[in-house]
This record gives sequence, C-alpha cells and structure tokens, in this order.
Amino acid sequence: MELLENKILSEGRVLSGNILKVDKFLNHQIDPNLFMEMGKDFYEHFKGMGINKILTLEVSGIAVAFAAATYLNVPVLFAKKSDSLTLSDDVFSSKVISYTKHKEYDIRVDKAFLSSEDNVLIIDDFLAKGQALNGLMELCKQADAEVIGVGIAIEKAFQEGGKHYRSLGYDVYSQAVIEKFEDGKVVFKKD
Amino acid sequence: MELLENKILSEGRVLSGNILKVDKFLNHQIDPNLFMEMGKDFYEHFKGMGINKILTLEVSGIAVAFAAATYLNVPVLFAKKSDSLTLSDDVFSSKVISYTKHKEYDIRVDKAFLSSEDNVLIIDDFLAKGQALNGLMELCKQADAEVIGVGIAIEKAFQEGGKHYRSLGYDVYSQAVIEKFEDGKVVFKKD
Repeated sequence: MELLENKILSEGRVLSGNILKVDKFLNHQIDPNLFMEMGKDFYEHFKGMGINKILTLEVSGIAVAFAAATYLNVPVLFAKKSDSLTLSDDVFSSKVISYTKHKEYDIRVDKAFLSSEDNVLIIDDFLAKGQALNGLMELCKQADAEVIGVGIAIEKAFQEGGKHYRSLGYDVYSQAVIEKFEDGKVVFKKD
Repeated sequence: MELLENKILSEGRVLSGNILKVDKFLNHQIDPNLFMEMGKDFYEHFKGMGINKILTLEVSGIAVAFAAATYLNVPVLFAKKSDSLTLSDDVFSSKVISYTKHKEYDIRVDKAFLSSEDNVLIIDDFLAKGQALNGLMELCKQADAEVIGVGIAIEKAFQEGGKHYRSLGYDVYSQAVIEKFEDGKVVFKKD
C-alpha cells in the first residue's frame, strides 16, 4: 500500500536492533486519515469472505483493527495482556513473547466473545517472528473459530512469521512489506 | 447520548463494587457503528474550538478517541502505561492509580508529540474518581499544552472526577452519565 510505505519512508525511523520506529503516526500518535485508508484497504482485500469478527491484540493493534471494522461492519475483539477485575476467569488464554519488551505475557479473551460461530480476521500492526500472531491463532483454535485471514500493517519479511503462516495456507495480507534495513533505511519488498 | 445509554441498559452488567461491565461493546469487544456515532457526537460538541490533538490513555480510550479523531480530523496521541524499547526516554510522565487493577502506574508520552502548540481534547472511556484524567491533565501541564475540553463515554457522577474538573471551569462532556446503581441496575442522570 503506497500511502503507508510513503508514510514509513517520510516519518519512520530505523533504530538499532532493526526496530522501526513509527510512533509519529502508528503506535503512539495515530494519523486517523491514514488509518481509515488502511481500514478501507483491508476491506478491499477481505470483503466477501464471510468475516464476522476482527480479532486483535492490545495495544497498538486496536486502532487499525477498528478502522477495518468500520468498513467490514463487524465487531472488533481485542485480546488483553494485563489482569483486570473486569475480565472474567472464563477465558481463552495463550502466551506471547515480546522482543521489544523482553518478556513473555499471557493474552486472553473472554469465552463469551469467541466461538465456533466466528469467521475471524486477525489484524495487527506488526508481523515479524509471528509471536503475537501465534498467540491470536491459538485463541481461535481454543474457541474452534475459523481464521479467514490475517491483515498486517507492517511486515518484516526477513523474519519468519509471514512466511510460516502463508506456507500453512493462510491468506496473510500485509500493507507494507519490509525486505530489509540497509544503512538505516527501509527497503520495501516489491512483487 | 441516547444510543450509548440504551446500549448500556441492554448489554451492560453491573458487578459488585459498582463496576459496570461493558466488555460486550466498549472495552473488550468494540461495536464500530456505536463508536463512530460516539465519535460524531464528540465532534458535534467540540467542533470549532481549535482542537488540534486528541490525547487519550491506552488501552480502552484508544478506539473512542480514534473515532472522534476521524471527525475532528486531528491526530490521536495515546499515553503509554508500559515500558517499551520503542518509547524514548524523553517523555512527559505522571502517575495514575487504577482501582480496577489495584495498582499505581506511570503514564508517559514522548515529548516530541505534545507541546505548547497543542490545543488538546482529552478523551477516555470512563470517568469516575478522575485518576486517569488527573494523569492526562498533568501531561498537558508539563507540555504547556492547553486543554480545551474533556470527552468521556461513561461518567459515574456519584464519584468526584467530573464534578471536580467542571468546578475548575473545564468543559467536561460525558455521553452517558450514571447517577447511581440501584438493585444492580444503572440509573442515568437526567438534566
């Protein structure tokens, strides 16, 4: 998606450790016009597939999942990372390793909101090693929900997450696919 | 806002300790159509006031802030609760006590995204004692940003947060104002 790629080139920054900092428009400050275009782009890719729910992971998946939900006209369910009195004990739960936070954590969704009735689009802001995606896939498996597709804003194609799930037959659609970082610059993968 | 009040009555539940559970449509699963209507309602209240940024707090403020941002056509900045390698050390920081999570935590925004140039609308999903709002106000104060108004989805009017900030002259606009819980039912405040 050219709009997102151009935004990454103009306002993203590459930090040491191959971390792409996109906090100016994506995961700290959010550009609502960009996000609605991203939502529309996900809609164009995934419409007509019978999706009835979007599943994402707090925190930074929420806004892009929400934008897509406004076009697909389905609810967004966000898996929770932290304990809360308002989350019941009756949950599906899996574990995610975060490389940017150097820790493992549980992610959970209330069993009331995910079931075998659901045809799920998983949406997240980043896909790299696929740890968050593994966790979200596991929640769907526990719920016996069908995963129709995976929508990602930014994929790091030099890490294995996207390749792995495509090899399993999943429709993984990423709006900006980074082939590599070179001299501190982002190089996008071209078809 | 009648649409939100009706949703609370039909799909919300009152738990012990006066906790209102609205996870079916607001803070675990999100109804995008409801949220866009809430965003439009915030726009109708706050349009024409020179607002150039919306500030909220992760997690559950993000989607409603985003919905309002699509109508006000301004960026959303969400204060972060947790440590991340992708947040710089150059931050404004304050402390928030969470009653539903029984802990105190730091909230932070990168100094690059909040300044004396900003006319801020603070948006959050709940207002009760005003702890989160205190923290967000403090961030704006540190940045020398002006707070133009406060938009809240659900206010518990029997707790002091809203009253306090209105007494200081702030335009605090809440879409659903709960006067009390009675026999496990929500009673809304009427003008």
